[in-house]
Amino acid sequence: MRALVFNDKLELKQDFKKPTPKQNEALIKVKLVGICNTDYEITKGYMGYNGILGHEFVGIVEEINGDNKSLLGKRVVGEINLGCKNCEYCAKGLERHCPNRQTLGIYNKDGCFADYVTLPLSNLLEVNEKINNETAIFVEPLAAALEILEQLHIKPYEKVCVLGDGKLGLITALALNASNIDVTLIGKHQNKLDIAKEQNVKTMLLDNLSKENNKSFDIVVEATGRLSGFETSINLVKPRGVLVLKSTIATGKELNLAPIVIDEITVLGSRCGQFASALRLMEKDIIDFSKLVSSKLSFNDAIIGFEKNKEQDTIKILLEM
Amino acid sequence: MRALVFNDKLELKQDFKKPTPKQNEALIKVKLVGICNTDYEITKGYMGYNGILGHEFVGIVEEINGDNKSLLGKRVVGEINLGCKNCEYCAKGLERHCPNRQTLGIYNKDGCFADYVTLPLSNLLEVNEKINNETAIFVEPLAAALEILEQLHIKPYEKVCVLGDGKLGLITALALNASNIDVTLIGKHQNKLDIAKEQNVKTMLLDNLSKENNKSFDIVVEATGRLSGFETSINLVKPRGVLVLKSTIATGKELNLAPIVIDEITVLGSRCGQFASALRLMEKDIIDFSKLVSSKLSFNDAIIGFEKNKEQDTIKILLEM
Repeated sequence: MRALVFNDKLELKQDFKKPTPKQNEALIKVKLVGICNTDYEITKGYMGYNGILGHEFVGIVEEINGDNKSLLGKRVVGEINLGCKNCEYCAKGLERHCPNRQTLGIYNKDGCFADYVTLPLSNLLEVNEKINNETAIFVEPLAAALEILEQLHIKPYEKVCVLGDGKLGLITALALNASNIDVTLIGKHQNKLDIAKEQNVKTMLLDNLSKENNKSFDIVVEATGRLSGFETSINLVKPRGVLVLKSTIATGKELNLAPIVIDEITVLGSRCGQFASALRLMEKDIIDFSKLVSSKLSFNDAIIGFEKNKEQDTIKILLEM
Repeated sequence: MRALVFNDKLELKQDFKKPTPKQNEALIKVKLVGICNTDYEITKGYMGYNGILGHEFVGIVEEINGDNKSLLGKRVVGEINLGCKNCEYCAKGLERHCPNRQTLGIYNKDGCFADYVTLPLSNLLEVNEKINNETAIFVEPLAAALEILEQLHIKPYEKVCVLGDGKLGLITALALNASNIDVTLIGKHQNKLDIAKEQNVKTMLLDNLSKENNKSFDIVVEATGRLSGFETSINLVKPRGVLVLKSTIATGKELNLAPIVIDEITVLGSRCGQFASALRLMEKDIIDFSKLVSSKLSFNDAIIGFEKNKEQDTIKILLEM
């Protein structure tokens, strides 16, 4: 089968061995995949991962190794963390924090940028016919956005800001807005802000921030991944407010954590979410994900897709099998 | 009156003007004061404060400007933040987050290192006769320790670690232990750990930490104020756990915030607390604060006290009027 493999360099293999599903796993024929910034980070050394890349896919279950055949032939998406099923985290449904977890295309488990992928049946969710492939492909980032609502009780009167208008920030702002939360997206790029604005999200250019915006949001979601974004977030959040860290930041200069103590701010790390509520939101058809697709290429052009992903104006690149 | 004043340099004045209580304020004759590290930081430039230092005191109400004379002649301690009484924070009883607050001996309000101090009546709490002055003087740091319990619901089965065996760490560990929480104090100094150990707190030398301690605490309280303490705390806390930042840290080198996102850790800034529950705990006489007093000097030796406060083995220095 074809497979996009990272092994110190990125290569589209034509004759990679088709995987075999283990007990209670499914073999899925992949239909559509999405490139995530994490994929790009892996090609720069993140997680020290080598293997088939990719964790965003929609596919059809072609084979099941196990008694429960209910998903056979069904169109599915798949949760990306594979827990050990034996630890305190798995017991709580937190496979995404299992210390022995594998992560699809990220850690110890071949990803979905290939004609076929295997996953445990318990990771798979059927996609309702109301949701097309080009929408369903966003289930993983949408679930990551909705993870904020699993971790945090956002009250109806609270003001939320999402800082950063990249795909993470856009999807987060659209997801919170679709959940009837009072959200404002702040970013540097009018063209990207407009995607949210056309879907009735309040937006503001970063350049238009003034002192009056300081300490004015109950909750700020940092989605820039930059130190400057972290610092702006600290300025925007109210005393006793919450700063949600949605992207990993390594600081290269002095970082002053004193305001966190003085204003008793909560900094909440937030990562992957569960897919069920994301699919439920997609069925409601409130968010127009098509505006987030910059290009849809053939999987044969996967390497070109990775190059395009680096471009400033790119939001999401899809690859069709 | 005598007053310890910081005005670019620290000086014990003999003829400072006695303050006059404003409407609904009391004039308090100060009996005993405690030196806090914040006082020392102010003499290094913190908050740009100039004026009478000090925010930890026990005194007797000598005069009241207002109709309610119920506290006249009473022994009192005083909450250190003076709110505007008109903002959303004051309305919630969060004067300590009022954007227009004054803070005793720290910001825009003369402190208590003097023969007399004034405070609003609403800041004062009578001290029960069961509590002696040398215990009551710890009400502010004890309230700061108990602030964690206002911010965070610590469940009976959760394991808590306090990192750092300075006065902040010791008081925090003793306070949590006295609240029947499963707490372990980790520090570098056996002699300081022993103060907590003698009062039935579990302790551990930092040098004895092993890989098995990684990700083993539900809640870690960072009380070292050092970047290395922050990094150790990140290692000790479980995924989805809470790292309470109790002291201000300015980092001088690269700080990697990625583990906060990956493990969805909550970093909770925590500062001043309310005095009522601290006084209630003191009445129960569970914590022996006398072990935390390194020296009790005459107020005339205040400058010497500040020098002693810098010494490695010093915990709390008291000054008697």
